[in-house]
Amino acid sequence: MRLAIDAMGGDNAPREVVNGAFSAAPDVDGDLILVGNPRRLEEFLPAHTPSNVHIHPAHEVISMDESPIVAIRRKKDSSLNVAVQLVADGECEAVISAGNTGAATALAKLRWKSIPGIRRPAIATQIPSKEGRFILLDSGATVDCDPQDLVGFALMGAAYATAVLGIQHPRIGLLNIGEEAGKGNQLVKRTYALMKQDIDNFVGNVEGKHMFEGHVDVVVCDAFVGNIVLKTGEGIAEMIMDAIKESLPKSPLLRLPLPLLLGGLQSLKKNLDYAEYGGAPLLGVNGVFIICHGRSDEKAIRIAILHAQRAVKNGLIDRIRTSALAFRREKQHA
Amino acid sequence: MRLAIDAMGGDNAPREVVNGAFSAAPDVDGDLILVGNPRRLEEFLPAHTPSNVHIHPAHEVISMDESPIVAIRRKKDSSLNVAVQLVADGECEAVISAGNTGAATALAKLRWKSIPGIRRPAIATQIPSKEGRFILLDSGATVDCDPQDLVGFALMGAAYATAVLGIQHPRIGLLNIGEEAGKGNQLVKRTYALMKQDIDNFVGNVEGKHMFEGHVDVVVCDAFVGNIVLKTGEGIAEMIMDAIKESLPKSPLLRLPLPLLLGGLQSLKKNLDYAEYGGAPLLGVNGVFIICHGRSDEKAIRIAILHAQRAVKNGLIDRIRTSALAFRREKQHA
Repeated sequence: MRLAIDAMGGDNAPREVVNGAFSAAPDVDGDLILVGNPRRLEEFLPAHTPSNVHIHPAHEVISMDESPIVAIRRKKDSSLNVAVQLVADGECEAVISAGNTGAATALAKLRWKSIPGIRRPAIATQIPSKEGRFILLDSGATVDCDPQDLVGFALMGAAYATAVLGIQHPRIGLLNIGEEAGKGNQLVKRTYALMKQDIDNFVGNVEGKHMFEGHVDVVVCDAFVGNIVLKTGEGIAEMIMDAIKESLPKSPLLRLPLPLLLGGLQSLKKNLDYAEYGGAPLLGVNGVFIICHGRSDEKAIRIAILHAQRAVKNGLIDRIRTSALAFRREKQHA
Repeated sequence: MRLAIDAMGGDNAPREVVNGAFSAAPDVDGDLILVGNPRRLEEFLPAHTPSNVHIHPAHEVISMDESPIVAIRRKKDSSLNVAVQLVADGECEAVISAGNTGAATALAKLRWKSIPGIRRPAIATQIPSKEGRFILLDSGATVDCDPQDLVGFALMGAAYATAVLGIQHPRIGLLNIGEEAGKGNQLVKRTYALMKQDIDNFVGNVEGKHMFEGHVDVVVCDAFVGNIVLKTGEGIAEMIMDAIKESLPKSPLLRLPLPLLLGGLQSLKKNLDYAEYGGAPLLGVNGVFIICHGRSDEKAIRIAILHAQRAVKNGLIDRIRTSALAFRREKQHA
């Protein structure tokens, strides 16, 4: 297995990305390819480089706030483009990047193409629930969806839950404003009808409040709504942290549990901030792409690399391909 | 001023509704009309009834889970329908109801008609922020919107913020997945262009996370997204409360601040649960309608009645009418 790492992408690149790669290297059954400017990367190499970490040159960098379209056209030798191309050429099996998400998504679609039967890509984010976690998708790739797109997200979410999280029969829910059939806007009403007919283990509509209760493994929505869920969650968690700090009594003894509490909330907040920990996969393209938060540190990069390894080892892409193919066959015979 | 109260609507009706009316009566400059079955209501009347509380008979009840369409057609003598009719007939100036929200919205639209220039109604919910509160609309009435509908919500939100919350120049934001112009789905991109041109004090796009920071007074979205915001917030707050209970040390001394914390969070959660406290106005129809949560207790009903009084006193409906008229004139002359 060979994993390509966009060593120049992210607010803390290349230092934290390089450190993350070295931290993950002993746990990777294969090679890690740091893609970037060799001279810049060599500054951060430790004295004894693990034998499974290599550098692949790329001399340009797509910055975080650059227009994806312009960046893709102009910077052919960017670390992101070269990393994506390594997978397109069959030299690597995954890309991990904390760089410009828009450019990452656009490059993966352009160079890897969509998996047959999947019309639009989706980013899948793991979110904590009372009973563990669930997957929310799409949380960042496709803001304008039709019902078929959402059905595709359901297929991909199920494949991801099985391949990467080990859930054998993931329960699939549709994010909606009420539980009864017939609730919602035009998009989700039409999607509900399709999912009820076509999606295995479809548990129906799930309300925003109830998705945290642990009764569903995959929650499907468009990327506009997915973003609102994640960002509202972050905002609320942050407001609660502030309120706790202010509302607690001033007595030092009574404030003892404070760090404990805030630690727990901080971790919840990070979990909601997609990809801050472990990254989130871009699903629907012919390759494993783990998108990390721009702020990712060494630990986040390490987890993202192991995340990519698990996806490759467990055949995530093949599983999505098979699932999409079976779905199309079934529809053709119906 | 005469306010019609749907005395039979809600999980705790008529007891809590009647108690709420009596609790509010001394603070109301006018009459409270309890609409419902006189025999049932008389059970709950106190020994000394304030002189400004009256009963208006209605012998049917629309239950909470009844189909609005069927209920409206069949139950002409329902407390909700009779209360709405009192306003249509000019006998009252507002309705307060904790009953079936779908039926309430449908009846208000049917009997009161839309304010000229406003195409679709919206429910406005107050949400706590770090600096006070902001208004989110639509949080429950219109799930499928076009850009003109959202512009109408912005006009109504501004009028409500001024009339009822006393904010002279409310800052209006558009809920979106990024701050830059050009972000978002087709609906919000087109809405942004209209608002930038037509809405006074438009502060641009506001992200889910940032709306809690106190930089905006009115946040506009469709009712699908609005519901997801409120319900996600509720779910997160509940999960955090559970996590706090479990994560705190078992030592009784260290648990002392717990009730304080949970009290604060509970109140946040109630605030997010639209209309649990004070009700939320249905805007866009020719009358003041305060929709209360089905679970409303005496205190919630009391606050909702005072909320309705403030809206009537400060000319909320006229303000929306004037604002919509001015907007249309401006468009015609442009």
